[in-house]
Amino acid sequence: METLYDVQQLLKSYGTVVYLGKRLWDIEMIGIEIDSLYQAGILELTTYQQIKMILTREHEVEIRREKNKEDVVVDGKLIGIDLGGTTVKFAILTVEGDVQQKWSIETNIGEEGTLIVPDIIKSIRHRLELYNMKSEDFIGIGMGTPGTVDRVAGTVIGAYNLNWKTLQEIKKPIESELGIPFAIDNDANVAALGEKWKGAGENSPEVTFITLGTGVGGGIIAEGNLLHGAVGAAGEIGHITVEPLNGFDCTCGKKGCLETVASATGVVRLARTMSEEYSGDSKLKYIIDDGQDVTSKSVFELAEAGDDFALLVVDKVAFYLGLACGNIGNMLNPTDIVIGGGVSAAGEFLRSRVQTYFDQFTFPQVRDSTKIKLAQLGNEAGVIGASSLALQFK
Amino acid sequence: METLYDVQQLLKSYGTVVYLGKRLWDIEMIGIEIDSLYQAGILELTTYQQIKMILTREHEVEIRREKNKEDVVVDGKLIGIDLGGTTVKFAILTVEGDVQQKWSIETNIGEEGTLIVPDIIKSIRHRLELYNMKSEDFIGIGMGTPGTVDRVAGTVIGAYNLNWKTLQEIKKPIESELGIPFAIDNDANVAALGEKWKGAGENSPEVTFITLGTGVGGGIIAEGNLLHGAVGAAGEIGHITVEPLNGFDCTCGKKGCLETVASATGVVRLARTMSEEYSGDSKLKYIIDDGQDVTSKSVFELAEAGDDFALLVVDKVAFYLGLACGNIGNMLNPTDIVIGGGVSAAGEFLRSRVQTYFDQFTFPQVRDSTKIKLAQLGNEAGVIGASSLALQFK
Repeated sequence: METLYDVQQLLKSYGTVVYLGKRLWDIEMIGIEIDSLYQAGILELTTYQQIKMILTREHEVEIRREKNKEDVVVDGKLIGIDLGGTTVKFAILTVEGDVQQKWSIETNIGEEGTLIVPDIIKSIRHRLELYNMKSEDFIGIGMGTPGTVDRVAGTVIGAYNLNWKTLQEIKKPIESELGIPFAIDNDANVAALGEKWKGAGENSPEVTFITLGTGVGGGIIAEGNLLHGAVGAAGEIGHITVEPLNGFDCTCGKKGCLETVASATGVVRLARTMSEEYSGDSKLKYIIDDGQDVTSKSVFELAEAGDDFALLVVDKVAFYLGLACGNIGNMLNPTDIVIGGGVSAAGEFLRSRVQTYFDQFTFPQVRDSTKIKLAQLGNEAGVIGASSLALQFK
Repeated sequence: METLYDVQQLLKSYGTVVYLGKRLWDIEMIGIEIDSLYQAGILELTTYQQIKMILTREHEVEIRREKNKEDVVVDGKLIGIDLGGTTVKFAILTVEGDVQQKWSIETNIGEEGTLIVPDIIKSIRHRLELYNMKSEDFIGIGMGTPGTVDRVAGTVIGAYNLNWKTLQEIKKPIESELGIPFAIDNDANVAALGEKWKGAGENSPEVTFITLGTGVGGGIIAEGNLLHGAVGAAGEIGHITVEPLNGFDCTCGKKGCLETVASATGVVRLARTMSEEYSGDSKLKYIIDDGQDVTSKSVFELAEAGDDFALLVVDKVAFYLGLACGNIGNMLNPTDIVIGGGVSAAGEFLRSRVQTYFDQFTFPQVRDSTKIKLAQLGNEAGVIGASSLALQFK
C-alpha cells in the first residue's frame, strides 16, 4: 500500500468507487470511506494508519498543486546551465521542465577561469539569436556550479577544477549582460532538484539524491525545499560516517566517510584492502595482486560475472550505502532516495543489494514508505535542476 | 567566527564601522567591505568563505524578518496543549511566545481515553471564563500528542499510553466546541518547535532536537519548516542505527538503534552489558553485580563522582550520541542540535563528551557551524512549541 491508486484499488475490492470529478474531493471522500471500513472492523489498524498517512500526504500535495494552478499562467521559458570542469551544458526548457533545446561548450579554465562567465554569456546570446528569442521570453536562468556558492550575492569561490581560487561574480555580469534574472546553487543540489522534478523523484516534495562519482555528493529536498543548513553544508551525504572505528582517511580530514568506500576510488580502495585478507580463487584478486589497473567498473563487472571476491567487495559497498541510506530514511523519511553518478551505472545489481541493507537498517514505517531508486536523468539532471532554480522568478 | 557580531568586530579591528541604520543594508555593506579586504589580500580564503556564509544566512533571516514585519499586526493570543500519559499541560501565550498563563489537569485514560478530549474542552472553557476571555481573543490552539497524527484530519490513533487504540477525533470537537482554529502534531515535533522558537534554538530556521527519555525521540526543523517525510516518520532520531553489526534489539524491530543505548533504559542496558567485561574496581559494577536497582541517573552520578567504570559507560553513550549527532550535522548542517529529555539532566558533563565525538565525526564546515546545545525549556517546550503550530492561523 503505497499510493492513492493502491487505496482506490482496495476500496474497489470492497465495491466502492469514489469519483467526484475533483482529486481533492476524491481524497477527502476516500478518507471518509476508509474511516467507515475501519470502524466496521474490516481494516486492520496498521493498514488503516498506513492509508491515512498516504491520504494526508496526497491531500497536501493536491492543495499545493491547486495553489500553484491559481498562480498566473506564465508562458516564459527557463535556461539551465550545468557548469563542469570540462564542459558547460546548457538547455532551454518550458516551465513544465521539458527540454526544448540543448547545447554545450568547452570549459576554458585558462587565465584563472576568467573566460568562463564571458563564454557563457556569449554562448547564450548566440543561441538566442539563432532561435530568434529575446530576454523577455525567459523567466530566468538557473545554474549549478562546483565550489562554494553565495546564493544571495550570486558568487562562487574555491572551485578548483575551474581555476576559480578567488571570488567570481556570476549573477551580476549575467544579469546585466543578458537582462534575465539569475539564480545559482551547487552542482549536487542542482542535480538533486533535477531528479526530484523530472526524474526518479516524480516531483515528490521529499527526495534525497546521492551521486556516486569521483566523490560522493548529494542534495536533500524536504517539505518541498532544498536544504542548505547553517552555512550551505547540508546534503553532504558523502561525509556521513559509516565506519566510526577503523575507517579510511577522507579528503575532508575525518575518517570513515561514505565517500571513502562508495566513490569510484573508494570502491577500488576497499577492494585492495579486502584483497589482503582474501585467500580464495578470484580474478579480481589476481588483477590486484598482479598490479594491473582496477576500476570500480571492473569490480562491478567481475561481481556480476560471479567472481566470489568481487561479490564480497560489492556486498560491502552495498552494506555501507544501505547503512547511510537507512539513516537518511530514519531521519528524513523521504519518499525516494535516488542514487546516481558513475558508480550507479552498476544499476539494479547495486540497487537491489543496497535495498537489502536499507531494509535491515530502517524501522518498519520507513522501510514501507521510503523507496531506493536509480537516477533516471543521467547527464541531464544538472541542466534540468538548474533551470528549476529559475522557477522562483515566475 | 560564528555570528554577524564577530564579523563586525573583525571589521572594527581594521578600523571599519558599518552603520546604515537598517540591518539589511548593514549586512550588504559589510559584504562589500569584506570583499575588498579579501581582494586586498588581508583576509585568508577560509575566513573569507566563512564570513560570506554568515552574511548569506543573516541576509536571508533579515529578509524573512522584514517580510514578517509587513504582515498585519495581530493581537490575538495562542493556546498550547501538551498531552501526555499522566497530565495535560496548557498555556496561553502571546504571538511572541511569551507564556502568560499556564495550568494542567490529570489525564483521565479511563473509558478507553474517551474522556480526554471533553476534559480538555472543559478545562479551556473554564479558564477562558476565569480570565474573562472569548474565543475571538485567540488566533488558534496547537497541540502535541503521542501516537500517529493525521495533521489534516486532526485525528490521532495508536496512542497506547492514552488508551487511544482506535481513531480519535481531536480537531473537530475542539473547533466546534470552542470556536478556535486547531492544529496538531506529534509530541516530539512539538517540543522541537518549542526549543527552536523560544529555547536553545534561538529561533534559527535550522534546528534538530533530540529528546533522551524513556525512549529517544526528535524533531527536525530545516529551512524554517518542521520535517514530516513521506508518512510522518521524519525526525525519528531514536532509530538511527549507531551499532550496525552487534547492536541491541530495539522495540521497533531492528537492531542497534540510538534508543537502545541512549534512552534511560538504554544507558542501564549498556552498563549491564559492559559490566560483564569489566574487572576493575567500581561502585557501579558492584551495584549491578549485587542486583540492586540501577538507573541512568545513578550511572551519570557515579561517573561524575569519578567511578572508572561509570565513566566508561558514559563515554560509550557519548560516543553513540556523538556519532548520531555527527551524521545529523553532516546531512543537515543545522545551526543547533539541541539535546533534551530526562537523560540530558546530566547537563554539561554529557554535552561536552558528546561534543568531543561530534567533532570527530563531522567535516570541518559542519564542525565549525553546527553547535551541540542543551535544551533550555524543560517541561515547557511542549506547550510553547504546540502553541506555535497555531501561528499558521494568523
